[in-house]
Amino acid sequence: MNQQDLPRYRPLLSDARAHLTHEVSALDERGRASTISIPAERPLTVYVDKRELVTLMTLGGAPEALTLGYLRNQRLVRSIEDVVSVQVDWSVDAVAVVTRSGIADVEERTAKKVVTTGCGQGSVFGGLMDEVETISLDDSARLTQSVVYRIVDTIRTQQSIYKQAGSVHGCALFSNTGELLYFVEDVGRHNAVDAIAGLMWLEGMRGEDKVFYTTGRLTSEMVIKGAQMGIPFLLSRSGTTQMGHMVAEKVGMSLLARCTGKHFLLLAGQERLVFEPELLELPPVPRSA
Amino acid sequence: MNQQDLPRYRPLLSDARAHLTHEVSALDERGRASTISIPAERPLTVYVDKRELVTLMTLGGAPEALTLGYLRNQRLVRSIEDVVSVQVDWSVDAVAVVTRSGIADVEERTAKKVVTTGCGQGSVFGGLMDEVETISLDDSARLTQSVVYRIVDTIRTQQSIYKQAGSVHGCALFSNTGELLYFVEDVGRHNAVDAIAGLMWLEGMRGEDKVFYTTGRLTSEMVIKGAQMGIPFLLSRSGTTQMGHMVAEKVGMSLLARCTGKHFLLLAGQERLVFEPELLELPPVPRSA
Repeated sequence: MNQQDLPRYRPLLSDARAHLTHEVSALDERGRASTISIPAERPLTVYVDKRELVTLMTLGGAPEALTLGYLRNQRLVRSIEDVVSVQVDWSVDAVAVVTRSGIADVEERTAKKVVTTGCGQGSVFGGLMDEVETISLDDSARLTQSVVYRIVDTIRTQQSIYKQAGSVHGCALFSNTGELLYFVEDVGRHNAVDAIAGLMWLEGMRGEDKVFYTTGRLTSEMVIKGAQMGIPFLLSRSGTTQMGHMVAEKVGMSLLARCTGKHFLLLAGQERLVFEPELLELPPVPRSA
Repeated sequence: MNQQDLPRYRPLLSDARAHLTHEVSALDERGRASTISIPAERPLTVYVDKRELVTLMTLGGAPEALTLGYLRNQRLVRSIEDVVSVQVDWSVDAVAVVTRSGIADVEERTAKKVVTTGCGQGSVFGGLMDEVETISLDDSARLTQSVVYRIVDTIRTQQSIYKQAGSVHGCALFSNTGELLYFVEDVGRHNAVDAIAGLMWLEGMRGEDKVFYTTGRLTSEMVIKGAQMGIPFLLSRSGTTQMGHMVAEKVGMSLLARCTGKHFLLLAGQERLVFEPELLELPPVPRSA
C-alpha cells in the first residue's frame, strides 16, 4: 500500500511523559558506594476498543508511537485511518485504543503465537512468515558507502539513554542520503522498531528510500519487520542469524552487519551498495565506545 | 517445591542434533569477499499431547532441555514426573511432548500474554508477577568475591558458539564455589535460561546454593526466571533495568551487573556478597574481548 496516497489523517494521540531513567545505589568490587542510572522498564497494557490485547514492557519514551507500530506490525489494524484515538495513561500503565471497525478476526489472529529471538517484542501473531513470501523489495534502491559512514557516525554522536544508563536498544530511520529522521530507544529493540513503524504510519512515510539502523542483532523478526515496512537497507552494529539472513535474501533486503567506524560486513543484497574505495584513504571515523 | 525430595524420575528424551552454525559469504568495506559463520536460528514448534502450544525460535543446541524448561518456567507443567516424553524431530522442526495429565486450564493459562523485554522468550503467560509476590530467596546464602572472579574467568575462557559466530546469548549455572554445572547458548537468552531450568528439573537440582550467569541484560523477565528457579545470585556482563532491579529487591535476589575482569556492580542483595579486598592486590584477570 502506498501510504503517500493516503490523505494525511491523524488519530487523536495523547502525549504521555514518563521518567526514562531511574537511580539506584551500587557497590563496586572495592565496596565503594555510588549511584548509577538504569533505564526505566514499565508495563503498558494495550486495550483495543476496551478489549485487553497485550502488555508490552517498555522504557516508555514513545508509548503512542509504540502502540500504533505494534498494531501495524502485528497486522491487527490495516490502516492508520482505522485508528480513532490512542490515549496513554501512565497512572494506570495502560493505553486505550479506539478503532473505527475493530480488529478483524481478533480471536483467530491472536491464537497462534511465535516466540521469537528478538528482544522486546517477543510475540508475533501468526502468518508473518507467510507474508514474507509476498514481499519483494525495490531492486533499484542504492546506498553509497559514504552514507553508511554518515549513518554510523550520526548514531555514534547521538544523545541517548544508552549513554546515560545502558541496557537499551536503539533503532533509527534515515533517508538514503543519511539524514536522521527518527531515533527511538527502548528496553526491547522490537519496541523501538515498532515505535518507528508507528511514526512512519502517522506521517504516511514509505520505506523504499529509507535506511533502518538498529543496535541489536539482525534476527529473523527484525528482518521481517524491516521488510514489512518496505525498507531495503538494514544496518546493525551487531551480527545476524541464519533465519535473519535467509529472510533478507528471500525478500531482497541489503543487510549490513558489524557497522562500526569504517568497518562493515555486507551479508545480503550486495548489488545495492555503491562502494567508494576512495573513502578509505581518508582518516578513519573514530570508533564508538 | 523441594525437588531433591522427588525420586529421580526421567522422562523419555530424544537426543536431537542440528548444526549450530551456518556459513555465509560477506563483503567487507573494501569489497573483499570472505566466508563467516553465523548462528543457526530455527523454529521449534512445541506440541503438548498433540496440541500446538507455541513456536520457539532457537539455536537448536538443547531442544529437549529447552522444551522442558519452557513448560516449567511458564508453569504449564508443575512436576517433571508429569512429563512422559519429549521427542524432538528436526526434520519437521517440532517437538512432541506427552504428559500424564495434560496442561491444567491450558485455555485460560495461555490467554493472557505479556510481551517482555527479554531476548528470545518474549512471551510469558499470565500470573508471573503475582507469583513473584510469593517468592522469597534464602537470606543466608553467601557468595565470595573470589568465586565471582572464578565464574567470570570461567565464562571468559569457555568454548562457545559466540566466539565462533557471535549473535547468541550464553547462560550458565554455577555452584556457590564457582564450579560450572551447565552452559547453554541460544539466539535468545530466554531460551538459554529455560534450557538450564530444564536441566535442573531433570536432575532435581535446587537453586538455593547456585549462581546464575547470563551474558544478557538483567531485565524483569530474567530476574523473575532466576527467582522461579530459587537462585539467590544473578550475575551479568551487562546491566539491569528498573523492573529487573525492583523484582530483585522484592524477592531478595543479589544482582551483580557489569561483571568483567575484576569489576562488578552489586545492585541488590548487597548483604550476601563476601568482599575480599585482598584479591584486588593480585594481578587483574585479563578482560574478555
